[in-house]
Formats: sequence, C-alpha cells, structure tokens
Amino acid sequence: MRIRVILPVIGDALIDHVRTEVTGWAAAGTEVDVVSLERGTASIESEYDEALAGPGILQRVEEAAADGVDGVFITCFGDPGVHAAREIIDAPVVGGFEPAMLTALSLGETVGIVTVLPNVLPMLRSLGRRYGIEGRIGALRVVDLPVLGLEDREVLLDRLAEQASDAVARGEADVIVLGCTGMLGVAAELRDRLAAAGHAVPVVDPTGAAVTWLESSVRLGVTPSRTTYMPPPAKARSV
Amino acid sequence: MRIRVILPVIGDALIDHVRTEVTGWAAAGTEVDVVSLERGTASIESEYDEALAGPGILQRVEEAAADGVDGVFITCFGDPGVHAAREIIDAPVVGGFEPAMLTALSLGETVGIVTVLPNVLPMLRSLGRRYGIEGRIGALRVVDLPVLGLEDREVLLDRLAEQASDAVARGEADVIVLGCTGMLGVAAELRDRLAAAGHAVPVVDPTGAAVTWLESSVRLGVTPSRTTYMPPPAKARSV
Amino acid sequence: MRIRVILPVIGDALIDHVRTEVTGWAAAGTEVDVVSLERGTASIESEYDEALAGPGILQRVEEAAADGVDGVFITCFGDPGVHAAREIIDAPVVGGFEPAMLTALSLGETVGIVTVLPNVLPMLRSLGRRYGIEGRIGALRVVDLPVLGLEDREVLLDRLAEQASDAVARGEADVIVLGCTGMLGVAAELRDRLAAAGHAVPVVDPTGAAVTWLESSVRLGVTPSRTTYMPPPAKARSV
Amino acid sequence: MRIRVILPVIGDALIDHVRTEVTGWAAAGTEVDVVSLERGTASIESEYDEALAGPGILQRVEEAAADGVDGVFITCFGDPGVHAAREIIDAPVVGGFEPAMLTALSLGETVGIVTVLPNVLPMLRSLGRRYGIEGRIGALRVVDLPVLGLEDREVLLDRLAEQASDAVARGEADVIVLGCTGMLGVAAELRDRLAAAGHAVPVVDPTGAAVTWLESSVRLGVTPSRTTYMPPPAKARSV
Amino acid sequence: MRIRVILPVIGDALIDHVRTEVTGWAAAGTEVDVVSLERGTASIESEYDEALAGPGILQRVEEAAADGVDGVFITCFGDPGVHAAREIIDAPVVGGFEPAMLTALSLGETVGIVTVLPNVLPMLRSLGRRYGIEGRIGALRVVDLPVLGLEDREVLLDRLAEQASDAVARGEADVIVLGCTGMLGVAAELRDRLAAAGHAVPVVDPTGAAVTWLESSVRLGVTPSRTTYMPPPAKARSV
Amino acid sequence: MRIRVILPVIGDALIDHVRTEVTGWAAAGTEVDVVSLERGTASIESEYDEALAGPGILQRVEEAAADGVDGVFITCFGDPGVHAAREIIDAPVVGGFEPAMLTALSLGETVGIVTVLPNVLPMLRSLGRRYGIEGRIGALRVVDLPVLGLEDREVLLDRLAEQASDAVARGEADVIVLGCTGMLGVAAELRDRLAAAGHAVPVVDPTGAAVTWLESSVRLGVTPSRTTYMPPPAKARSV
Repeated sequence: MRIRVILPVIGDALIDHVRTEVTGWAAAGTEVDVVSLERGTASIESEYDEALAGPGILQRVEEAAADGVDGVFITCFGDPGVHAAREIIDAPVVGGFEPAMLTALSLGETVGIVTVLPNVLPMLRSLGRRYGIEGRIGALRVVDLPVLGLEDREVLLDRLAEQASDAVARGEADVIVLGCTGMLGVAAELRDRLAAAGHAVPVVDPTGAAVTWLESSVRLGVTPSRTTYMPPPAKARSV
Repeated sequence: MRIRVILPVIGDALIDHVRTEVTGWAAAGTEVDVVSLERGTASIESEYDEALAGPGILQRVEEAAADGVDGVFITCFGDPGVHAAREIIDAPVVGGFEPAMLTALSLGETVGIVTVLPNVLPMLRSLGRRYGIEGRIGALRVVDLPVLGLEDREVLLDRLAEQASDAVARGEADVIVLGCTGMLGVAAELRDRLAAAGHAVPVVDPTGAAVTWLESSVRLGVTPSRTTYMPPPAKARSV
Repeated sequence: MRIRVILPVIGDALIDHVRTEVTGWAAAGTEVDVVSLERGTASIESEYDEALAGPGILQRVEEAAADGVDGVFITCFGDPGVHAAREIIDAPVVGGFEPAMLTALSLGETVGIVTVLPNVLPMLRSLGRRYGIEGRIGALRVVDLPVLGLEDREVLLDRLAEQASDAVARGEADVIVLGCTGMLGVAAELRDRLAAAGHAVPVVDPTGAAVTWLESSVRLGVTPSRTTYMPPPAKARSV
Repeated sequence: MRIRVILPVIGDALIDHVRTEVTGWAAAGTEVDVVSLERGTASIESEYDEALAGPGILQRVEEAAADGVDGVFITCFGDPGVHAAREIIDAPVVGGFEPAMLTALSLGETVGIVTVLPNVLPMLRSLGRRYGIEGRIGALRVVDLPVLGLEDREVLLDRLAEQASDAVARGEADVIVLGCTGMLGVAAELRDRLAAAGHAVPVVDPTGAAVTWLESSVRLGVTPSRTTYMPPPAKARSV
Repeated sequence: MRIRVILPVIGDALIDHVRTEVTGWAAAGTEVDVVSLERGTASIESEYDEALAGPGILQRVEEAAADGVDGVFITCFGDPGVHAAREIIDAPVVGGFEPAMLTALSLGETVGIVTVLPNVLPMLRSLGRRYGIEGRIGALRVVDLPVLGLEDREVLLDRLAEQASDAVARGEADVIVLGCTGMLGVAAELRDRLAAAGHAVPVVDPTGAAVTWLESSVRLGVTPSRTTYMPPPAKARSV
Repeated sequence: MRIRVILPVIGDALIDHVRTEVTGWAAAGTEVDVVSLERGTASIESEYDEALAGPGILQRVEEAAADGVDGVFITCFGDPGVHAAREIIDAPVVGGFEPAMLTALSLGETVGIVTVLPNVLPMLRSLGRRYGIEGRIGALRVVDLPVLGLEDREVLLDRLAEQASDAVARGEADVIVLGCTGMLGVAAELRDRLAAAGHAVPVVDPTGAAVTWLESSVRLGVTPSRTTYMPPPAKARSV
C-alpha cells in the first residue's frame, strides 16, 4: 500500500519530521512518500492561506493519481483541497479534521478541539457544520502558538494540557482532538498528563487518524462517490 | 460607491455582459468595475475549478483593497474565495449563494435552487449546512447545461421553468433561487412564466441579490468581523 | 420608491424621530411615511403586547396595500404581524429581526443580540428557531432598559458597549445586532467604542437593515411567495 | 377542576358542539366553560386570521384569570395567542398543536399531520421549528376543506383516510395528528379505518390531547415558567 | 383503568414507597400495581445497569400484556426497555424521561434537568438527541447522590435547590425536570423553594408526568404505532 | 492484536462464517476470536431482540475484559450493548452502525442504508439522531429478508442492487451502507453491479468497517472516554 502525504506548504524543512511521524503511525507494509508544495505559503493558519495552497495541492494530487498511489493525506487540519482532490483521483483522500473528528465521535459524547491560533476557530466551526456533526462538538480552544512555533515540546504540552483539562473539567469535552497536524508526537503524553490530572479521556492525533483512516479505506475497497465527487468537466485553464 | 466585480474565470469574453448586468442592478451612483482572472479556469463547475481559482481571486481582492473599493462581488454561485477574501479587505465581500439565499429566506418558507449541472449539487448542499440554513432549503434541481452553454436564452428559460414548476408543484420550493451567476437576465421572465402557470413565487437573481447586498452593507457601515475573519499572519509565500 | 413605516404602538410621540432615522438610512429617491397605530400598546416588550398590536398593524398594512406602497417596515424587532402582513400585500414586508439577523449572517460566524429587557429573550430564541438560523446565534443580552427608557443615549451606549464587549470577549458574538428598533442612532458609535476596546466587530442597526432590505427587494422585483403566504380565505370578521 | 375553552372565532354557532366534545374528553370532575370571541374572524385559516383574533383571545384569557380557572384551552390548531396568554395567567394554557404533537412524539417515530387547507401548512412547518421538534415531523397533508366546511363527516373521513393512508404507506407518518380542532369526533373512526387498511397507527385528536394535557398539568402543579413568560410591563394601551 | 408500574430493579424495598407515590399522582379510578424485577440490578445508574435490566423488564411487560393492563410505567428516568416494550404490548408504555421532558416543553423555553450522578449525563444527552428535542435542553446538573442515597430528604432538597437555582440564574433553565424517578415527593417543595429564591419556574416530577401521561393516552385511545414498533419476528430464544 | 467478536445471538451456526469473514478483513497480525451468546435470541431484528441480548452480550464483554483483548466487535448493525460495554472495558468497542456510518461520511454527501426488514428502520433513524449525524442520512431501504434468510446470495444481491440503484438514482444516496452484519461477503460485488449500472458509488461493509475501525483505534491508543463512559457504580445484581 502506498500513501502519498501532501504537506500543503512550501519548503522542505518539515518533510523529514512528517515522514517519520506518518511512518510511525503506518502499518508495516505501507509505503509513505511526503511531498511539499511548489506554490503556496509557509504554513496554513487562515482561509487565505488555504486558498493560496489550492492549486499547489491539486498539482500534487494529480501527480499522485498519475503515480497510482492508494491513498492521499493532505496533512493540514483544515482539510484544504480535500473535496476538490476527491473529484480527480480514484483513491481515498483525507485531511486532518475529518478522520480525527469521526474517530473521536466513537470515543465519547462531546468532542473538544485544541488548535493553534484563534484565527482558525471560525473555520473549524464551519467545518463542523459542513460535515453535519456540529451537535457533537464542544470546546474549541487554542494554545496560542503559530504552526511554525510548535517546536518547543514542553511549552506545547503545557498549553495543551491546560486547555484540555479546563475543557474536560467544565464538561465541554469528553474526547480531545489535536487541532493541528503540526502538533506531532504529543498525543500519548497529553493523554497521560490528563489522566494523571484525573481526566481519563482519549486524545486523537490527526496524523495518526488520517493514516489509519486511509489504510482502512483501502482495505475496505472504498473510494470517493462519483455522485458526490463528479469528475470536473474539461475546460480551458491557466494556473 | 465603487463595487469591484471579480469574475473568477480566465478570459475576457464575459466581462461586458457581466458589467451590463451588474450595472443594471446597481443604484444610480454606484460605479462598477469588472475584472476576470489571470489564473484559473474558463468556468467553475466543481470544487476542483473553485480551488484552482483561489489565488487568482485573492490577487484581485488584494488589488481591490489597494484601490479602496467599497465592496467586492465574486460573481460565482459557489462563493469561491469569499471567506478568504474577507480576511484581507475591510469592505463587504459576497459571492452569489449567500446573498441570494438569505434574501430568499425572507420571501417564503422553503427555498429551491435551480443550477447548471449535477456536479455542483453536493457543493450547494454543503454550503447550506456551512451557513446553517439547511433546514430551509428544499429542491435542488439542474437545467443540465454547462455554465458556458447558457447562451440560448429560450432553452435556458424552458428548462428553468420546467424544473422550477415541478419543484413548486411538489411543495419543495416556495421561492426559486437561480443557482448560477451565469444565468443572467432571466429572473423576471422566469417569475412571469411561473406565475402564468399558477405558481406565484418570487425568483431571486444572484447577481442582483449580490449587488444590492453590497450596496446595503456599505450604507449600513458594516464590514467583515475581525473576530471571525482575522487578518492572516504574515509568512513566506510563493504563489 | 415609497416605503410605509408602521410604528406598531399607539401615540405619535416617536413618529418624528423614527421618520428622521428611517429617512437617514433610505436611498435618495425613497419616500418614507410613518404611521403609528390606532389600537395597540405604548410599546412592545412581550408576546402579549405583540398580540394586542396585531389588528392595528394589519389595518395599517391594508391601508398600505390600498395606497400601493412599494414596501412595508413594521418597526419592531420581534417582527410582529410580519407574516400575516405578507398574506395581504403584494410588496415586501419586514420587521426588525429578520433583515438584521440575515444581514449579520454575512458578516461573521456567531451573531449576538443586545436587546432591552429579559422579557423578550425567549421570543428572540423562538424566532431564531422559527427562521431556522438558531445554529448561528450566540449571546442574547439585555441593557435592562425598557423601550420607552432608551432616551438617555449615554446610558444606552454604556450598557450596550458593556454587554457587547463581554459577549465578544467570551467568544459568544462575532457580530452585534441591536435587538430593539428603538435603539436609534447608536450603531456606528457602538461599533467605534467596541473597536476602541479591541473588538473589531460590525454592529447592525435593525432600522437600517430593514430599510435597505426593502429597497433591495423592490429593486430585485421580489414579493412574498404565494405558496407560503396565501391570501386569507374570505370570511366574516368583527375586529 | 375548571377549564375555560376559548373558541377563538366570532359567533356562537360552534359553542355547543365544542362543549360537548370537550366534555366528552374531560375527566369526571372537570367543569368546562366555552366562550367565543367578541372580536375576531369566523374561522382561523391564515396568519392573518390568527393576528386578528389576538386581542379577542387575550380578553378572554384575562377573564379566565379573573375567574380563577385551572386551565385554558384556546381551541385552534395553530396555537394562536398561547404564548401571550401564558404571560398573563398563572395556569396552564394550550392550543391544539403543542399538546397533540408532543403526545404524538411518544407514539411513533415520524408524526404526520392532516389539516384543512394548504394555507396553513407553512404555519405548521414554522411551529414545528419554533417548538424545536421539526426533526420528528413527516408528512403535512390537507383534506382541502375549509374549517367551516367540515360538517360532512363522511367526506371528511374519506379525505382524512385517503391522505393518512398515503402518508403512512410512503413511510412519511407513523402517527397521525388531526391538524384542525374543528375535526371533531372523527379520530377513533379514522384510526379504525386506517387499521382496516393495514395501517395500525394511532390518531391523535387535538381537542382530546389539549384537555387531557391541561388536566395533567393541573394535577402536576405546573404553570408557565416566569423566566420564559414574564408578566408584560405595565403601559398605556388602547385596544 | 389499570396501570402496571415496573420498578426496573431487583428487591422489594422500594415497592411500597413507589406504590404510594404513584397512587398519589393517579386519578381516582386508576388501579396501580407495582412489580420489581426477578433479574437485574439494585439500581440503574449507567448504560450497563440498563442493559442488565432489559430481559427482566420485558418479562414484566409480557406479564402486563397477558394481564391486559391499560398502561405500563417503567419507573426509571433513562427509559430502559421502553421502546422494546412498545413492540410487544398494545397499550401505552412510558419511562420517566419522555413524559417529563415533553411535559416540560409546554412550560418554558429551555428545560434543565437535575439528576443523581455524572454517570448518567451522557445518557440523557443521547436521549435528548434520540427524541429530537435536544435544541430545547439546557442545563444538565447532578446532586451527586446515588439513587439509593436519596433518602435524606433535606440533603436532597438542598442540593436540588442549589443546582436548580444556579441553572435558572444563568439562563440555562426555565423549567426544572427531576432527572431520577427515585426523587420522590420533592417536586412541590423544590418549586416553592425556587420561587422563594425569586425563580418562579415549574418543577416536573417524572413519576407524576408518567402517570398522568399514561392516563391521558388511555383516554385518547392511542397505543404504540405498529409502523414504528412492529411486533418482533418469532424466533428461538433462551434468556 | 487480539479482537474479540461477539455474535450477539444464541447458537453456533454462524460462528465459522463470521470468523472467516472477520479474519478476511483483519490485518495480518490480528488474532480473531468469535463467541456467540449463552442467553439471547437467534437473531436481532427488533428493539425487543436487542434488549433480550443485553446481559448475554455484557457477559461476553466482561470475559473479553478479563482476557485482556485489544478490541471488541459486537457484530450487529444496531450497536446493541455497545455503549454499556464501553463502561466496563478499557479497549475500543464497536457494533456495526457506528463504524460503517462514520466511514461512509468520508466518502460522499448523503449516506443510504439497505437493511433487512422494515422492523429495524425506526431503530436506525433513532441511532442516526443519537449519534448526531442524521443530517447526512438519506435513503433507508430494506431487502425484505430476515437475518436468517440471507443465505441465498443471488437473491440478496439482486435485492440489494435494486434498492441501492433506486436510492442512488433518486439522489437519496451517494454511498451505500449494508445495514446488517449478516450481509457477509457481498459488498464488493454490489459495488461492481452498481458501477455497471452507471452508479459509481462506494459500498461499505459493516463487518469490514468495524474490524478496521478497531485496529485503527488500537494503533491510535484511544479507548472509551471515562467522562462519557464512567464505570458503573458497584451494586447488588442478579442476572
């Protein structure tokens, strides 16, 4: 099984880290490629950044389709380009939000998200409604660190634990979803810290959720519905 | 008052027609500019087309901001780039869906949409949920003509009337919204045809709804909320 | 264009003020008449007051229909008589809630309302559900002043700013709607005070929203759907 | 226990029939008074009719409060004046919609309504949303007879059976609610006809549901919440 | 009229108390039997307890059907076995949640529940969605006493009053529902204490609501819909 | 990884078939045990059957917990005992509905279910609401074969294809979910038949979805939230 990971930002700085993490979640036989974008922005923290990344993401999806990969993971929590991508490839495609949130629904009543900056909260609220699962979403919190400022693991974990604990204590979360695919390698420790504080709630890592989702989809033999994701009519383009 | 109309496709073929129509809806003192895209596709009929148009649209929005226009109309029913645009300009921005649908809500209980191709129906359903108004949306129908195949006015009107009549007769629409901003100059005649067939229901033209919405917003002194549409954090980009 | 404003209370004390305000929002060519009721109450602050105003409002709507006006604004935030009125006149009719709230939906994710007294909060909650937009409504706050006690502009603005700031700060509002059409002439200053306090959110004046809504509807050629608002069957009446 | 039935129409023609029916549903010890209106219309079949009946209904509610009755039934399916009435009397008040629909929710998954004329369908849809139970409402059908044309019992039953059977057969109703309080004395026979046709579904008579609802409420010691239904502030009135 | 009360726990300790309470709520002519279970648990405070009680409850329902009772009350707030029971008896069946909550909907805008332990809150949230009334539910609170620890009436009342007052004061409840059928005989006093504290809100006792609901259903001639509650197909069983 | 499959019916007839199928979906290293119930019914086709199976299922879950398995699959589409089970085991537990439906949400806009008998449709509708995903569910269809009458593969496939094609053609399904875990080994062929008929939609096998869901959950390190699924308080029991 071959999974193409599209890191929807410019630059190669994060590629190795992402490959290591994705590979860590993947099953033994799964091959993982990671590519970043030729065109886009250095990180995605707004609808604007997402829109700028669109063509760059779809270029990578077209390459993935040509390469015959088995699944595509666009590694950003806001699911940029995911629905467009499903129109042009006969393989499962996910971002971070959808697999993490749907996984979380099976673990507890109310799902809380802790993400990076307040800028993305309205996008997450909109996504919840778009997917029709808004009735199960509770707390939306931030660590108030930019995507490119998550490298201090202790600071990140402290802030995640603080926000998550508070959300659970107030009854606004029974499951915690990490709301940025850049929060790599902290889910298990956050879960343990929460448990130590008396909050025995699961923590869903969106990268892990996406990788296992794709592997499951491939094994289930399911691909995007062609009545929802019809192939785009041919037409002139200049992008 | 100056309104910038962004026709989110490449090519100049439609610019004059759009300018005439927009100007027809605009108030006496409103100045209207129409620009198309440098980069994008020839028409928008899929999530894929929308995503490809993103950077081209935002380039035009940035120009509009620099020019100090009073409002921006991205003339496509799927609202491409609208939310991203609101992050980067202190003036009201609309596409076609939002102003037409919100206008329709004040006219009758159930809103029906007649659009171009089945390809866009899932996007419209998703938009209805994203905006939180899905409980008021009824029939979603198509004339089964591509955006660039709407020029035969009689065929278009016949198919619109057929679909709209059927939706009203089945109780699935009390108001008809034209689901493509390329369906120019047919709303009044469609309304009259429906009335002649015993269906006295209003027909909302999305271009007209967008233009009057912007003018109203300007007069009301309202601009995008900065707690929803925060300015994108500065970062490296290459688009 | 001629707009008939129905002030749904008895007495003439407020007519001049309302005419000035409505005229201030109206476009250059719009003629504005303001009438109050022969029968009703001195202000509307309850379902009871609304019900007592019903026949008096409809009498004014019938006169408006006979006079051939182009639009009717029943100037009360609770939309009293609006749906009944639409059954008997072929022109757009609005109250305060619907145009203000629908306008607000295009400006930010979550809409907060600041109204007069706690008495009307349940009505507003019910209206939100009736219109099917409850998923977008956040804070419902009061200034705790009766409709006829709003004349001290400073007190009103202080309380509006206090409530609105708190709602925005808690993430319960991205847009503020003034929840009483008696809160005249304060929207712009409230917006500026909020901005000065770091809350750059739009403030929607329901009078302005209603006037521009009617003007837009007239220009769009839309009138109440006759499958939703059927003409009442003829029958004996004694009112 | 004393129940005041307010027949929200002018004229005494129906009073005896209503008293007989209400008494038939009432418990042994319940005293029933029926009053019609001094001011209003001959029947209620539109939002307009409802609005005209408002002050006449509230006058009767004030009398009922002065008389110290134990409960008030405003006998119309559209619940006219019900919420206003709850603001001014410390006793349970119901119309027809609310008790019938809430009763129906305990009997089956999807509730279908068969009412008189298409004119009232949008009101019923709005009421469903207002009460927050729209997710459980299925078919909305009409017998296409005016309220004052229901006297031919056979015609009424034939049309009710036809509409209800069709709704059940299509999976759009598991419970049938009679959507007009003027459909007196037909629920049991309709249920038997449906059962004979293979549709073993309950039929809820709104008059019966209202009477037993009031009796239950009195026995439960519950009256309108004063945080929802606050007493109207005192003010000048002329009605 | 004969009502069978099924106390869905093992042991006879509570039978007399329940019989007294139910009889206190029942109408003069209503006969009340109370039976507990042969198999189950000592109290129900989890999904697990509910599931263990299933066969024991249904055995009692089958006996009730054989005895030809007129209605069945499974006296537990979580409605255990209620939907299964409706499949096998032609008489109305209720638990505590459904009649109490539906009754509460007619009394105020937002319904708050005060129950025993945090363990059952997710079940109540799920039930609210299952019944499609979640939009009207506000505060969910606990007294933090187990079902078998409610015997100290003063402690119970103090904690109920504390939680209910706080919920009303925060605008999260306009009606209070007692969220455990073991909270017997305290509704009226709680209502009075709340009123004394300035919160004039009704308090719904689930036992009273259930008993009157059944009596009303019997008088209305309604029984479970056979398109929702189809008789279970015959098959081998060993329970 | 060890997965315990609980076949929630009495008798061993189906065990081998289920083991073969589950093993077919499982990853290379996953060990699969299948157990049926000591107490319950021969198949589950009603709320009644589900309730009778409760204690038998939980007995098997307790054994699974004692055995330290990594995940539990209760192989029935109605998710019987799933929520109770999560209270008593620190490992992921699923039935058929939840993993299949959540998987389907990532594949297309509207999910259609084809199940066995009309008896279970109301349960499925209720489950959709309970899980808060009802806005994404479209067609609910039946093959009209009992669970124990699915052995004729051709008849089953013919009826599945007929119902699924019709649902897709009417726009009521973009993804098909097999609504009974007894429909083993037909998903791929149904998908191919639908594709051959011009309906390129994915088909989700609930057994496959459950198995991969559990494997993913184990790899993600997530277990039931203890704020949603609190351990049942200790108490006397006799089951």
